[in-house]
Amino acid sequence: MTTIDPDRLTCPAPVADTERVLLGHGSGGRMSADLLASVVTRELGEPGPLEDAALVGGDLVVSTDGFVVTPRFFPGGDIGSLAVHGTVNDLAMRGARPIALTLAYILEEGLPLSELRAITASVAAAARACGVRVVTGDTKVVSHGAADGCYLTTTGIGKLLPDAAPSASGGKPGDVVLLSGPIGAHGTAILSVREGLEFDSDIRSDSQPLHGLVAAMIDAGGPEVHALRDPTRGGLASALNELAEASEVTVEIAEADIPVPVPVASACELLGLDPLHVANEGCLVAFVAPDAADAVLAAMRDHPAGRAARAIGVLRPGGGPAPVVARTLVGSTRIVDLLIGEQLPRIC
Amino acid sequence: MTTIDPDRLTCPAPVADTERVLLGHGSGGRMSADLLASVVTRELGEPGPLEDAALVGGDLVVSTDGFVVTPRFFPGGDIGSLAVHGTVNDLAMRGARPIALTLAYILEEGLPLSELRAITASVAAAARACGVRVVTGDTKVVSHGAADGCYLTTTGIGKLLPDAAPSASGGKPGDVVLLSGPIGAHGTAILSVREGLEFDSDIRSDSQPLHGLVAAMIDAGGPEVHALRDPTRGGLASALNELAEASEVTVEIAEADIPVPVPVASACELLGLDPLHVANEGCLVAFVAPDAADAVLAAMRDHPAGRAARAIGVLRPGGGPAPVVARTLVGSTRIVDLLIGEQLPRIC
Repeated sequence: MTTIDPDRLTCPAPVADTERVLLGHGSGGRMSADLLASVVTRELGEPGPLEDAALVGGDLVVSTDGFVVTPRFFPGGDIGSLAVHGTVNDLAMRGARPIALTLAYILEEGLPLSELRAITASVAAAARACGVRVVTGDTKVVSHGAADGCYLTTTGIGKLLPDAAPSASGGKPGDVVLLSGPIGAHGTAILSVREGLEFDSDIRSDSQPLHGLVAAMIDAGGPEVHALRDPTRGGLASALNELAEASEVTVEIAEADIPVPVPVASACELLGLDPLHVANEGCLVAFVAPDAADAVLAAMRDHPAGRAARAIGVLRPGGGPAPVVARTLVGSTRIVDLLIGEQLPRIC
Repeated sequence: MTTIDPDRLTCPAPVADTERVLLGHGSGGRMSADLLASVVTRELGEPGPLEDAALVGGDLVVSTDGFVVTPRFFPGGDIGSLAVHGTVNDLAMRGARPIALTLAYILEEGLPLSELRAITASVAAAARACGVRVVTGDTKVVSHGAADGCYLTTTGIGKLLPDAAPSASGGKPGDVVLLSGPIGAHGTAILSVREGLEFDSDIRSDSQPLHGLVAAMIDAGGPEVHALRDPTRGGLASALNELAEASEVTVEIAEADIPVPVPVASACELLGLDPLHVANEGCLVAFVAPDAADAVLAAMRDHPAGRAARAIGVLRPGGGPAPVVARTLVGSTRIVDLLIGEQLPRIC
């Protein structure tokens, strides 16, 4: 009798894969949301999705993020500055200014100490520029082959700004949708230096801290700034879909108003990517009450991180054909969906 | 002419390795301390070592820890419960009770979802048992071969207990050294299930939360509880050395008073390990003022996590031949040194 080990059978579309972690589960799109809902928040006993940053007793905000970007050094930043900016920005999106950071390394045996030094110096410089200190940390080393060089996890503790009340569920029909700057630079900058995908054009990541911009917006609009989100993994499309679903509204944007730099647009065309799905690390999208929108937009344009800010759409009542729709350049309307699986693995 | 690429030259003891991350840098011993001092705290611009948990503005304590233990499931726990206990305990060692946890996953493509479910359920159960909630998190996925299944990074936020003032530098000559329970179980339990090292004996990890025990100790001794440390990576020897150096005292312990369970002692003998260097995840060592030591010890013994607590030594003025010395069973004295390199990789 012959016994067959089912684990050794393969077929082009293995059924078993639906029961394994796939790269797409890290995309920040639909598969990520499904994994969180079906495994993580479910097992944690949470009724709904956890926000990127959580309120803890009173005016404290906490956020945590892992960073696995490859390559670790890229035009416009590196894994160290990215980790600080990403975490500071998650706090800012809840209306908080950072007061402390923690830093946990997972290092692969064999990583040159010069790289560890450069990454740590970059963390320190970025933290200093944000006016925040790394207060504690942890270092783990795994054997060669059990990691890819260096992974970082940063946690930020922040304090809510006075009058700040942004929340993913805060959007209301009539709100104006503001975008702080051009999209698509981070994802295409990373791709531009990945092996075999080098472009001639000089695209730099937009990685930058946004807490100062948010403080200026809250100063101008206070609680009228209803929702904030930085469109990282999954891009602007995913950020808008998440906010629309949480706020139970329809987001209507005008494609013509979405600023995509020419080199980014060219790179996306070459690679078959939709700029709306490409990761950003230095811009934000906001839902602001119509009465306050002009003042908030003016405040954004007065801030170095928001010089190119503009209105890109409005919120309509929910229950339409899709959470996010775009008026196209030719006057029709298209659905702007969440990214499904993985477009660009290890983008942050 | 022949050109030689120096990166392709190898020799039995490559000099370049002193400029690379080695497994020993993750040991929790001397090499870890050196890496932190020469790279991490130096680049961060910190004057001295960062504590495992940091005070943030007033009565808030924050701690972060990465977990890379292999295997992920072991007798007495798994990577999920270990992450919660480790983080809760780091907070407790600063005299804080946990109020919130964050959880960041780094997942390897291909990890069975059933494992992710089991690990997350274990995080949830351990957090619930500690009376704390996971408030936010993050999930990254890396391709097959770029991680080993699943790594977790947990951050804990805690509130200082009233009257609590333990600090690594708080020990004073005359203080009594208290140990809450037997040592060596976690490290030997992990080893017992590593490939090729299976023992017959049934050793379970001591992984457990210690915040309740610490609360009972602080209730009994208040600020007379001068220093607390959980002897994880690097074992009791490293914990005592770190506290002795920070407090500028000499720790004198009696070998006969260190409780090592018989199966642990046998396993250590077989493997050539010193139980003083083996990791623990459910006990603590404390420096307590002599006047309060009896009351604190009694409170420990009244708590389920400290039933086997005992005094194991005293603090002498610093400046002796070594930070930690042990009176041996035959009446002589030996130096108890920090672990140098790596004894047991990926123990937590």
